[in-house]
Amino acid sequence: MKRSLGAKTLAVPAPVWVVGTYDAEGKANGMTAAWGGICCSKPPCVCVSLREATYSYGAILERKAFTVNVPSAGQISIADYFGIASGRDIDKFAVTGLTSAKAEHVDAPLIHEFPLNLECALIHTLKIGLHTLFVGEILDVKADESILNVNGRPSIEKLNPPVFATGEGAYFDIGQSLGAAFSIGKELEV
Amino acid sequence: MKRSLGAKTLAVPAPVWVVGTYDAEGKANGMTAAWGGICCSKPPCVCVSLREATYSYGAILERKAFTVNVPSAGQISIADYFGIASGRDIDKFAVTGLTSAKAEHVDAPLIHEFPLNLECALIHTLKIGLHTLFVGEILDVKADESILNVNGRPSIEKLNPPVFATGEGAYFDIGQSLGAAFSIGKELEV
Repeated sequence: MKRSLGAKTLAVPAPVWVVGTYDAEGKANGMTAAWGGICCSKPPCVCVSLREATYSYGAILERKAFTVNVPSAGQISIADYFGIASGRDIDKFAVTGLTSAKAEHVDAPLIHEFPLNLECALIHTLKIGLHTLFVGEILDVKADESILNVNGRPSIEKLNPPVFATGEGAYFDIGQSLGAAFSIGKELEV
Repeated sequence: MKRSLGAKTLAVPAPVWVVGTYDAEGKANGMTAAWGGICCSKPPCVCVSLREATYSYGAILERKAFTVNVPSAGQISIADYFGIASGRDIDKFAVTGLTSAKAEHVDAPLIHEFPLNLECALIHTLKIGLHTLFVGEILDVKADESILNVNGRPSIEKLNPPVFATGEGAYFDIGQSLGAAFSIGKELEV
């Protein structure tokens, strides 16, 4: 039996990504965003949606760049903190002890301690409502050696990134493998 | 030690959503998409990115509507099949035995057996490259009673939706709770 829940942002899973930017004075900032996803394969692009009221909003527009930094489950308290505090008032890197490094290809900071980092050049801005969607072309991906699988790609098992559960307002980690994509469904082919 | 992996769509987690549409003849179709996410809180919106070559692409533009249907982990083979076959050639509902029902608020089909369904009206179309991003305003969410938590919201633990792992090209389910959002990071506040 289905129940109607109304017009709400209750899709799952949502990511827990810390968006890295430099402000006008060149101070590194990070802001946690769960409204985002991959949005194009060629060019490879990711989108994140931010409220205009956030400090990161203006920084993305000014530098035409941002990074997406993916934490491990063990870093979830830090990731949550990056979504609570504002870079307008506080140096979140100083508070958390994290270190930033300028990205190689764009004018935005990478969070060194987070195992997976995407360097993104802003290529589209779409104001939707309370949130504005920023499309960033992924110019490079940096990954810690410790999370790479045998094919040299980031392993979700090794990284174990948090997932945002919109219904609970809580974070969860990654569970068991369910099988290979574009493969396990072939058993249904007629 | 970080390694540069190049310009690739290696962000995680990504969702496993089956996008529901009606074609020109009114035949229900579904197509699995991992390039998507929530993109605005007010109005509540979700985005999905599709290649122009897909059968669903034209259907979304024609009806200005789509649904997002979220499977449970136990339905992953069916969800994978919806990403392999094309609705141009095949009635995927007939093959899988799933049933569709017209959404209440938009001209698109809900997948009855999937526990969570979003009814979306197309409000923006953004051609990025190989993929075009469709922004849908969520007009209603339908959820199976069995996945609701005590607050009447969809529980990610009960739904246990698959996650797409971009590095492995595989699906995983949801693991353990890591704590409450906008809460566990407060311990770091100065």
